[in-house]
Order: sequence, then C-alpha cells, then structure tokens
Amino acid sequence: MTAKTVKDLFVHSLSDIYNAEKQLTKALPRLARAATSEELSAAFMTHLDETQGQIERIDQLVEGSGIRLKRVKCVAMEGLVEEGREQIDEIEQGPVLDVALIAAAQKVEHYEIAAYGSLIALAKQLGETHAVTLLSQTLREEKATDEKLSLLAEQKVAAEALGS
Amino acid sequence: MTAKTVKDLFVHSLSDIYNAEKQLTKALPRLARAATSEELSAAFMTHLDETQGQIERIDQLVEGSGIRLKRVKCVAMEGLVEEGREQIDEIEQGPVLDVALIAAAQKVEHYEIAAYGSLIALAKQLGETHAVTLLSQTLREEKATDEKLSLLAEQKVAAEALGS
Repeated sequence: MTAKTVKDLFVHSLSDIYNAEKQLTKALPRLARAATSEELSAAFMTHLDETQGQIERIDQLVEGSGIRLKRVKCVAMEGLVEEGREQIDEIEQGPVLDVALIAAAQKVEHYEIAAYGSLIALAKQLGETHAVTLLSQTLREEKATDEKLSLLAEQKVAAEALGS
Repeated sequence: MTAKTVKDLFVHSLSDIYNAEKQLTKALPRLARAATSEELSAAFMTHLDETQGQIERIDQLVEGSGIRLKRVKCVAMEGLVEEGREQIDEIEQGPVLDVALIAAAQKVEHYEIAAYGSLIALAKQLGETHAVTLLSQTLREEKATDEKLSLLAEQKVAAEALGS
C-alpha cells in the first residue's frame, strides 16, 4: 500500500474488508457445521447469506466509481478465523464449543463494525454519499448480527452449557 | 486448550485477553511514535496506562480465586498489531497515517470490547460477581477509548488529512 491521500486510504481499507469478507464466507460454513445448537448453526448460515450480500454491495459501490480494489490479504481476519479454528480443534462438540464459537464470531463482528465505521468516516470526508449509504446498510447488519449472537449466548446456548 | 466446562472456557478466554493486552502494551508506544498529531500520540500513551491498569485488574481477579492463567498467544491480536505495523511501514508519516492509525486502534478496541463482553457473560453464568465488576470496569474503558478515537478521527485528524 502506498496511501498518500484519504482516497488512497479509503481504497486500501475497502480492499482489506473485501478480502476479510471473502475469508469469512469460507469460515462460516465451518462454524455452522461445528455448532451443536440448530439455532446457532442457522444463525451462521444466515450470516453467510448476509456476508455474500455485503460483498456484492462492495462490488456495487466500486462499479462505475473509478475505484480499483487491490489484492490484499487481511491479516487481522486471518488471525480471527484461526482463533475459531483452534477452538473447533480443541473443544469437543457440544454446548461449551457453541459458547466459544459465539465469542469467536462476535470478535469477527466487532472487527467488521470497526472497519465499516472507519470506512464510513472516510467516505463522508470524501463526499462519497452513495458509498456512505451502502456501507451504512452493511454496518447496521453487522451490529444486528452481533446483538443476535449476544442474545443467543445469554439465553439459549449458555443455559445449555451450564446444564451440561 | 481442553475446555470441557464453561469455567475452562472462562479461564482460557481470560488467558487469551491477558496475552492480547500484553501484546498491546508493546504496540502502543510504536503507534504513539508514528502519530503526527500530538493529541493522537497522547491518546495512545493514555491508553497504554489504561492497558497496564487492565492487566493489573486481571491479576487482581485471578489472585486468590484459584484460577491459573495459561500461557497462550492471542493470534487475533497478533494479526491486529501486524495490520498497524504494515500501515506504519507503508504510509508516510503525516495526517493520512494518523487516520490509518486511528482505524487500526479502533479495530483493536472492538476486539477487546467483544472479548470482555463474552468474558462478562461467562462470569455472570458462573456467578463470579467480583470478576463481573472488574471486567465491566475494563469494558467501559475500552468503549470510552473507542469513542475518543472516533471523535479524533472525525474532528481533528480527518480535517487535517483533507487539507494535506
């Protein structure tokens, strides 16, 4: 990256989250398979659909804007995905793993909340109102997913884990 | 990690964030040196003090609780710290780097917000009220730091970056 301007930084950050979302589409089916709670498994699959929609939203944003995304690897998302993988390898399938998977997924959501928050701030400064609209839709989805996971952790899965 | 119970998962997650905070104490001075804005540099140093306090808070929580922290390496924080390092290497010192540093730091804050949120949920389920109190103090600090960084991004540094 050679970001000299706010616009460069915006393009780099957008390329980074684009790669992060792609990594996530590969990780989510693994999380869904590892989950014991059907509700949790379904939540991961719903978020997979959403994530694919978020990738398309970035494609839509880029289309005709003159922006060319760069090929970057989001190292932070690699670490976050690796953390989830470690837990699947090391915790027996069951309610405790479910709680661990929720925590891992919430870290991913918060990564994305921070990333889209920064992107929106950059887009506002650049006067890119169309980008602000699209990225804000995604940010709302990420926040809603995080809240849904919090509820799942508190109400359902956690109760099962304590009973186990 | 061989987490069979919610308590095991709590201890593992606490060990993970303990290592993450230690990594952060090494990264923050680097961010402070790389920042051009004095206000931003000072914010990073203030957060270094806070982070040290948060590590002590975990020590305090562990003391006399029978919990033994494990030696784990938080791979997610490694990725987050690496992302900040890449930006310092690749962007010239100045207002655009400052904006990038704020974004990197907010991703770290959100990682911690998610991690402490999950830890508090686990501690509540375990009836560990002292742990809930201590971890909630830290969570409030992380959220306040994130808000402070958002303000810095919007008000000061961003304006400079556009003018550059």
